[in-house]
Amino acid sequence: MRVYNFSAGPGVMPEPVLEQAKNELLCYGDAGMSVMEMSHRSKAFLDIFNETKQNLKELLQVPDTHEILFLQGGATTQFSAIPLNLLQTAADYAVTGEFSGKAWQEAKKYGRAERIFESCDRIPTQEELQFNAGTDYFYYCANNTIYGTEWNYTPEAEAELVCDMSSDILSKPIDVSKYGLIYAGAQKSMAPAGLTVVIIKKSLPAKNRAPRRRY
Amino acid sequence: MRVYNFSAGPGVMPEPVLEQAKNELLCYGDAGMSVMEMSHRSKAFLDIFNETKQNLKELLQVPDTHEILFLQGGATTQFSAIPLNLLQTAADYAVTGEFSGKAWQEAKKYGRAERIFESCDRIPTQEELQFNAGTDYFYYCANNTIYGTEWNYTPEAEAELVCDMSSDILSKPIDVSKYGLIYAGAQKSMAPAGLTVVIIKKSLPAKNRAPRRRY
Repeated sequence: MRVYNFSAGPGVMPEPVLEQAKNELLCYGDAGMSVMEMSHRSKAFLDIFNETKQNLKELLQVPDTHEILFLQGGATTQFSAIPLNLLQTAADYAVTGEFSGKAWQEAKKYGRAERIFESCDRIPTQEELQFNAGTDYFYYCANNTIYGTEWNYTPEAEAELVCDMSSDILSKPIDVSKYGLIYAGAQKSMAPAGLTVVIIKKSLPAKNRAPRRRY
Repeated sequence: MRVYNFSAGPGVMPEPVLEQAKNELLCYGDAGMSVMEMSHRSKAFLDIFNETKQNLKELLQVPDTHEILFLQGGATTQFSAIPLNLLQTAADYAVTGEFSGKAWQEAKKYGRAERIFESCDRIPTQEELQFNAGTDYFYYCANNTIYGTEWNYTPEAEAELVCDMSSDILSKPIDVSKYGLIYAGAQKSMAPAGLTVVIIKKSLPAKNRAPRRRY
């Protein structure tokens, strides 16, 4: 019945997970309703939410200095949300594939974002990363599915590290404490499409850059 | 097993719909995978997408002058997206409840948005709506769940009509051609939470108001 599915898009879900979702589709636990019919304020849903967050916190060993956010909008929305929230002075971008390229193009709309490395063939060494001084963050994409390249080290930078881990999160241990912001579309390695996970250092200044005009 | 659920939040799903989703959870049709594991570019998914859009087009008799969009982010994201895309000069808002109030507060961040009516007890008559001249749109919320008030007429305005129909869409026929933009969170009357439906007049000018700076 089930095919072998090597799609680079949404990943295969474990059959026991699908079986459990199937069995609970008309009635979740003793809630008397499907999870799709629950209020987001109900205890039944909040228990699911908190348990999921706690599981991810343990799996990735997310320190208490960081917050886990479950959002919508996919990586594309983060391309905007990251500069809107974090870009105050300037940011450096390493473009090693399609998605870091799109993230850089989007960031340029909101402020000074410089592409300090570009290659679709390889990942830069630490020495090749010539950062600008005084930037807010350095952005990179951990794994480039299309080009088959992956950062095998965590770059060191004075600015905050911002990383798109959509296609390799949960595939290996990472030191979350080194990052200002990690994000990942859930559909490749974590969950069905529709969820974007953001792990952000709580101390990061969030500046609301929405255009405010007064009359 | 199933309870009576009168929640004003996510609506009850029809049991035959839940049964079908349950039966297809491990294998959708002859796709060999769950719908949750499909590429958004696959024929199987695009068939679902196009059929859903066509069904909604027929149910609401959406004319060819209007486009149906399936988005994320809920009504809250539309509070921003509407002024970001449509507010060029000014807009009028009728605040008849919680959500139109929040929409107005958000719109004020992006441009001139005036609250031309405010009441949580009642809906204004057409005569009470004193529109400003030369606005881009008039915004209202069709039904206010918390206060139990509902617009029983479609207001007439020179500006484009923008309406939040989250809590009464599909409950009665509407003349879509009269609107510039209709939107609704799907969770109350159409589908599970996670989807926001926007129906927009194709001729409406969309102005990208993201702050662009040059160096």
